[in-house]
Amino acid sequence: MLALALHKFLRKLIYLRKQIECRGMGMDGCYDYVVEPRDVDLTGRATFVAVGNYVLQAAGEDADRNGFGLRDLNCSNCSWVLSRVAMEFDHWLMQYERFSVRTWVNEVGRLMTTRNMVLTDEMGVRRGAAVTQWAMIDLDRRTPVDIRANLDYAAAIREEPSPIEKPQRILRVTPVRTVAHRVSYSDIDFNRHANSMKYMEWMFDLLPLEYITDRTLARVDINYHHEARYGELLTICFEDGPQSLFEIKNSEGVPICRASLGWRER
Amino acid sequence: MLALALHKFLRKLIYLRKQIECRGMGMDGCYDYVVEPRDVDLTGRATFVAVGNYVLQAAGEDADRNGFGLRDLNCSNCSWVLSRVAMEFDHWLMQYERFSVRTWVNEVGRLMTTRNMVLTDEMGVRRGAAVTQWAMIDLDRRTPVDIRANLDYAAAIREEPSPIEKPQRILRVTPVRTVAHRVSYSDIDFNRHANSMKYMEWMFDLLPLEYITDRTLARVDINYHHEARYGELLTICFEDGPQSLFEIKNSEGVPICRASLGWRER
Repeated sequence: MLALALHKFLRKLIYLRKQIECRGMGMDGCYDYVVEPRDVDLTGRATFVAVGNYVLQAAGEDADRNGFGLRDLNCSNCSWVLSRVAMEFDHWLMQYERFSVRTWVNEVGRLMTTRNMVLTDEMGVRRGAAVTQWAMIDLDRRTPVDIRANLDYAAAIREEPSPIEKPQRILRVTPVRTVAHRVSYSDIDFNRHANSMKYMEWMFDLLPLEYITDRTLARVDINYHHEARYGELLTICFEDGPQSLFEIKNSEGVPICRASLGWRER
Repeated sequence: MLALALHKFLRKLIYLRKQIECRGMGMDGCYDYVVEPRDVDLTGRATFVAVGNYVLQAAGEDADRNGFGLRDLNCSNCSWVLSRVAMEFDHWLMQYERFSVRTWVNEVGRLMTTRNMVLTDEMGVRRGAAVTQWAMIDLDRRTPVDIRANLDYAAAIREEPSPIEKPQRILRVTPVRTVAHRVSYSDIDFNRHANSMKYMEWMFDLLPLEYITDRTLARVDINYHHEARYGELLTICFEDGPQSLFEIKNSEGVPICRASLGWRER
C-alpha cells in the first residue's frame, strides 16, 4: 500500500523533473536508459560500445519522434548515414546506473548535419557528451541528398551549441599491430552491413588489457568512410602513442573506418 | 535551485522505493524487458544471444531478490556456475516488443539445481521457455558446494514443474567446419571468463546465413563444461544434420562447451 503510493508519487516527481530539465527543449529529446549487466566489462564500468549504442539509440528515437527517423526516410527512399562521432567522458557509468541522454540537432548544411548528446545520471550530473555528424543518402543512387530540403528536419534545428569539440579528422594510421576479421552474422544489422559500434568493438579487442584496467578513456573520435558488408575480410590496424589510433581496411586496402582514443591515467 | 532540491529529494525517494520493492518479493519473480534495436539481427527478430542474455539477467535479478544472488554468495566465497540450458521458442520476439520473463526454481540436489523461465509478451501469450541447471562452487577450492545447505535457496523451491523438457546431454560432435577464436576483451565478464552467451555468438557466426533467414530456431540445448579465459585460443567446431551441433575446444583439445540447435522451416 505504502509502496504503491510512493511509486505513484515518484512517477509524478520524475515526470516533473524531466519537464523542468527538458523545458524549452523544443522536441523534448530526453531518453532514459539503465546500464545492464551485459553492458559492463571486467572493471564493472559500461563499455564504450554499450554507451555508444545507447547514444545512437537516442539519436534514432529522437529522429523517429520528430518525423525524420529511418522509417520516415525510407518512405522517400532515403536513409541516414553516420559520418563522424566524438565522445567525451567525465565519469564512467557503472552497472545498474540509470542515466538520460538529451539530444538535439543544431547545424545543417547541404551534405552534413550535427546531432548533439549530453549524458546525465539520476542526480543530473553530466557524465559524458557526444557530437555526431550525419549525411542523408538516396538509397537507389547511393548519392547524398540535400538535408535542408527535409522540412521536418529544418524545423527541429536549435541554436544551442555543441557540448564538446566536433569530431576530428583522422588522417593517417601507421600500424604496429594488425588483426584480420571476417564480418559475421553477429556483426550485421538489417542492411547486412556491420553495425557502427562493431567497428569499435574490434578496435577495443586489439588494445592491451591494461589500457582498460589502468587507464580511463577521456575522448573518442571516429571517422566512418565506407560500410563493411557481410562476409568481407577486414584488417584492423593499431598504432600506439599518446593517443591510440586505429584504421580498418577492406580486402582492397580501402580505409572504411578510423578512430582515435584519448586516455587519462586512473 | 528548485531542480537541485528536487534532485536530492528524489534520490532519497528512489532509495526508499528500492528498499520497499525488494522486501519480501516472495518467489514469484516476473521481470520485464524490451527488445532493443541492438538485440535484433538482419531479419528484425531478437537474436538467440539477446534473448539468452535477458533470460540469464532475469535469473540473476531473481536470485538477488531472494538472497542468493552472486553478491550474497560471494560473501561466503561461493558462486553460481551455469551448467546446462534448454530453450524453446514459440514465436520469435521482434524489435521494440515488450516481454516478461517469469522465473522459479523447482528442483535442488546436492550438486545441481534447476531454474525455469517462461517468456510471455504484453498480451500474455507464451513466446518461449527455458530450463537452466546450475551448480554452486567454492571460489577458492573450485569444488562444488551442497546447494541444499543454503537456507534462502531451500525456501525458494516451488512445486511447479519445468515448462519444457530438461537440457539434453550432447555426447559427441564430428566437425565438418572449424574456426579459431581468441578470447578477447569484448568476450569477457568481471571474472575475465568468456560470458556464457558469447559461446553461442561464436557458434551462430559459423552457421550459413540462410539458416537464419530461411529457418526458425525451435530448440537450443547447451552443455557448459569449462570456462574460457581471456587470451585463450579456442576452436569452434560445427557438424550439420537434422540438428546443428557445435563443440568449442580449448588449445589442449578439451571440450569447454557443446550445443545443439533444432530448426523448423519458416
